[in-house]
Amino acid sequence: MSPSNVGGLGLVAEDAHVGKQAPEPLTLAGIRARRAKAGKLDAPTASYSDSDMFKAPQSSDKPKAKRWDHLLSTESAARRPCVLKQAAKHLKKPGLVSLGGGLPSAENFPFESLSMQVPTPAGRFSHTSDLKQVTIGKHDVRDADGVLDLSIALNYGQSIGSAQLLRWVTEHTELAHAPPYADWRCALTVGSTGSLEAAYRMFGDRTRGDGILTEEYSFSTALETAAPLGLRVFGVAMDEQGLLPSAMDELLSNWDPEARGGARRPRVLYTVPSGQNPTGATQSEQRRREVYKVCQKHDVFIFEDEPYYFLQMQPYQPGGSRASNGAAATTTARAPQEISSSSTTSTLSITPNGATPASPDSDDDVEAFLRSLVPSMLSMDTDGRVMRHDSFSKVVVPGSRVGWVTASEQVIERYIRHAECCSQGPSGFSQAVLYKLLDEEWGHANYLRWLMHLRDEYSGRRDAILRACERFLPGDVVSWTPPAAGMFLWLKVDHTRHPHAATKTLLQLEEEIFDSCIEKGVLACRGSWFRAEHDKPLSGLFFRTTYAAASEEQMAVAIERFGAAVRGSFGI
Amino acid sequence: MSPSNVGGLGLVAEDAHVGKQAPEPLTLAGIRARRAKAGKLDAPTASYSDSDMFKAPQSSDKPKAKRWDHLLSTESAARRPCVLKQAAKHLKKPGLVSLGGGLPSAENFPFESLSMQVPTPAGRFSHTSDLKQVTIGKHDVRDADGVLDLSIALNYGQSIGSAQLLRWVTEHTELAHAPPYADWRCALTVGSTGSLEAAYRMFGDRTRGDGILTEEYSFSTALETAAPLGLRVFGVAMDEQGLLPSAMDELLSNWDPEARGGARRPRVLYTVPSGQNPTGATQSEQRRREVYKVCQKHDVFIFEDEPYYFLQMQPYQPGGSRASNGAAATTTARAPQEISSSSTTSTLSITPNGATPASPDSDDDVEAFLRSLVPSMLSMDTDGRVMRHDSFSKVVVPGSRVGWVTASEQVIERYIRHAECCSQGPSGFSQAVLYKLLDEEWGHANYLRWLMHLRDEYSGRRDAILRACERFLPGDVVSWTPPAAGMFLWLKVDHTRHPHAATKTLLQLEEEIFDSCIEKGVLACRGSWFRAEHDKPLSGLFFRTTYAAASEEQMAVAIERFGAAVRGSFGI
Repeated sequence: MSPSNVGGLGLVAEDAHVGKQAPEPLTLAGIRARRAKAGKLDAPTASYSDSDMFKAPQSSDKPKAKRWDHLLSTESAARRPCVLKQAAKHLKKPGLVSLGGGLPSAENFPFESLSMQVPTPAGRFSHTSDLKQVTIGKHDVRDADGVLDLSIALNYGQSIGSAQLLRWVTEHTELAHAPPYADWRCALTVGSTGSLEAAYRMFGDRTRGDGILTEEYSFSTALETAAPLGLRVFGVAMDEQGLLPSAMDELLSNWDPEARGGARRPRVLYTVPSGQNPTGATQSEQRRREVYKVCQKHDVFIFEDEPYYFLQMQPYQPGGSRASNGAAATTTARAPQEISSSSTTSTLSITPNGATPASPDSDDDVEAFLRSLVPSMLSMDTDGRVMRHDSFSKVVVPGSRVGWVTASEQVIERYIRHAECCSQGPSGFSQAVLYKLLDEEWGHANYLRWLMHLRDEYSGRRDAILRACERFLPGDVVSWTPPAAGMFLWLKVDHTRHPHAATKTLLQLEEEIFDSCIEKGVLACRGSWFRAEHDKPLSGLFFRTTYAAASEEQMAVAIERFGAAVRGSFGI
Repeated sequence: MSPSNVGGLGLVAEDAHVGKQAPEPLTLAGIRARRAKAGKLDAPTASYSDSDMFKAPQSSDKPKAKRWDHLLSTESAARRPCVLKQAAKHLKKPGLVSLGGGLPSAENFPFESLSMQVPTPAGRFSHTSDLKQVTIGKHDVRDADGVLDLSIALNYGQSIGSAQLLRWVTEHTELAHAPPYADWRCALTVGSTGSLEAAYRMFGDRTRGDGILTEEYSFSTALETAAPLGLRVFGVAMDEQGLLPSAMDELLSNWDPEARGGARRPRVLYTVPSGQNPTGATQSEQRRREVYKVCQKHDVFIFEDEPYYFLQMQPYQPGGSRASNGAAATTTARAPQEISSSSTTSTLSITPNGATPASPDSDDDVEAFLRSLVPSMLSMDTDGRVMRHDSFSKVVVPGSRVGWVTASEQVIERYIRHAECCSQGPSGFSQAVLYKLLDEEWGHANYLRWLMHLRDEYSGRRDAILRACERFLPGDVVSWTPPAAGMFLWLKVDHTRHPHAATKTLLQLEEEIFDSCIEKGVLACRGSWFRAEHDKPLSGLFFRTTYAAASEEQMAVAIERFGAAVRGSFGI
């Protein structure tokens, strides 16, 4: 596989059909062929599954992942499989009656069925998409030729997640990222906050003086998760593309434990490559390859946290060819426009509100969408040194508390040992609902069309806040980079122009503006909240805003208030 | 409050009505009065709540809980509130526009509504209860005078859980346990495996040489959760009522760190007082008081794990007045019978399948049920030294991955700080479904009637396995105590009568019988899997069986096979 092709998709494999091995990289047609060949998935209550059952066979030419025993914590290395879950292997014996596991009988579940009203696309999604009622019954497997039912979903399951949803997640991961080593696997999680906490505990050991590298400004909850575990966090300098590989290389090459309070050289990088929180920065493909190379050089393991990966937006056009119809951002009308593809030379005409939706029989639109995305670090991960954290929070609903991790077999096995004694895997209600929606109702193609729809939504929201910034903020004091992904706009305030720059600290100025914002009726997050190293002086005056939630009118009001607070503080 | 009355309920407070303070202990009428006085619950997206909003005011005469700073781990003590969650306090300001939290807009949630078919009781539940369709829409709060809707439930929330479900859990806890100190609180959890893991990390510190006391035979997952954290587990001798207080007192009074590999005297007890896993033992009220007293004497904090609390069954009648109708246990017909009350002198006639269901206007049946239960340790906890772990797994569905903890304000606050950087609280789908079912559809009274129905179910299942044991097991070699609660039957095999007792170890005999069981087609769990201390010799030959899952016929087949395996090994 050529490096420039990983993460994207090849042409639709028209020759892929039942009985033939699905070609690599995997395509939508390849998934259909693989499923047809495998036949109906048989996964009863609490049955064990892993990604190997659903992905390209390991017998390929790809190498296996490196081993990470030297980085695992004492805690992680000490984990043993749960004896009761191991006993479940005997359940395969024909005719065996189990008096083993204390699994309640589904007869006593007070739910006969669960239904949901979900949008169905007619070629593409819109805010007026038809709604469809989708139902899962208690005994659909027994009575209705179903693949998953409530008697399975609502009983105890394996911590790796149900086979039904794990299959979907594994296929989606292979489709979007095609990890370039043989023994990659996925595991469902209770969301990336939980899986990141587990990852910290798997790779971080306070008794070893372990530390973690991350962006100079980083997701505050990720920092707050590391601190109580005794893991020191060290920030790497950033530019508008996020992490600076040269700064990271220098930091690691010249690591001095003495100067770092006894902390040993960090062996883990936590990074959000797309739409980074809080800066909104998106690493280009080239940047990701450089970061990966530095990690290889210093044997650093990577936690790739990518909640916003599929919120990579259309390029911002200042002054805007996009006409607002005056309604909320969510109903902004948009002219057809082109998307630029970052990893291929081709461009495709996408018509968000146009008259020619994709043919239901064609995968062209979604495969073009996948090709347009910056490749993930997972897609470049020849060593198996990436543990990627995906989440449904930003692209389906936060309340599902479901995500998944992708990493090598060794790392996923350790993760599962951890999850068995912690979350026990995600909610069965969530898994049932997601399986019905993503697999049975939408399928991979329409899920990708949903992501395309969200991309349009977020592009419109981002454009709305940027227009407000252009209109209401003092351009000689406040600057920003239009975000290419995610939900955050990072506003830089030029403190050197402040009349009290000589007498007040950055923290004081930040607090003054923040308090004035609250006073005027807008909440924006203070940059200092996101400092990787709280004992270092602030490097600038920043505020994080989000365009995810407020309406277009509210955003305009809020940015006007923010501008007034800055003007007030600067006396302009 | 007299000690003999805690945990149960007083008479129905007929004088409790709107505008009057609900009397203590809380009654169903008291809950209705309190809710009427409070008015409609207003709890929008991600709003903060705590139990104080829903329970008896702290201004009572009850003392506050003791402080546990001296027991908290380095990790737990180091936790600080999440800065982003703290910023949410500004959202209360009228007219403020938030560009703060990255909460997706509910407009982009692909779920317009969620419906469930659930049984409704006609006075009581049965297997032919009518089904009702219950629906929660995306904007029920805005459009339909609802208290919870999908726009709230499926967005980010607080780690303590949604106010809507936290209210129900708090009321239920006060109703069932009436904790006898002022500042108790609840927090929702992702189930007791997760909350127990958090509790271990809050109170256990490997660098201090911390250990944990538990039953000599204890829940294997609880043991497997402690071990990788470096927490040593020590078993306390048991009888048919579980933990022996005298043995525990002696262990703690004569603790010798030298003899215990450097472990300091344990400061935490993990116990399952009702239907203990694996032994099925249920501590009487007197036993619980004695255990609590020993914990007071040695300043030991208690993790009370009570998944089976409400599966306290009707007394077993050997030879059985209960006639099987030959169908599965779940449809076993039962004659009306009396339940004995362990904490009051009164007895009440309960008619599980009788002709006189409770009047819908009367709470007598459910309040009698509550009075019939052995009081919890939480109900005796004058010090606030109990962290109780409740779960919906055994009484609603395991797949909800929802439970709750109850403890002092200090302990719950530390738990929330932990959960914010770990699970982030339970699934919004699960919370929405549970809220609609438990609060809006059933209410407290019908939920308790559901528990009464389950109690009948489990009584029938237990009776079926005991009948099979009486019929198929060699009585001179295998013995058991009829379980009074839970889902486990603990079979003791008298190894002294084994022909190779002198030459084979207990572990060898256990393995031999286990292998023979698998060979013959029955899975029963080996007693050795549950040993608190794996480095100590086995104290006996035990097998754990469950009557939770298999049908009556299957149980008979399974026990017959188990009996054959024992006979084969013993040559009888």
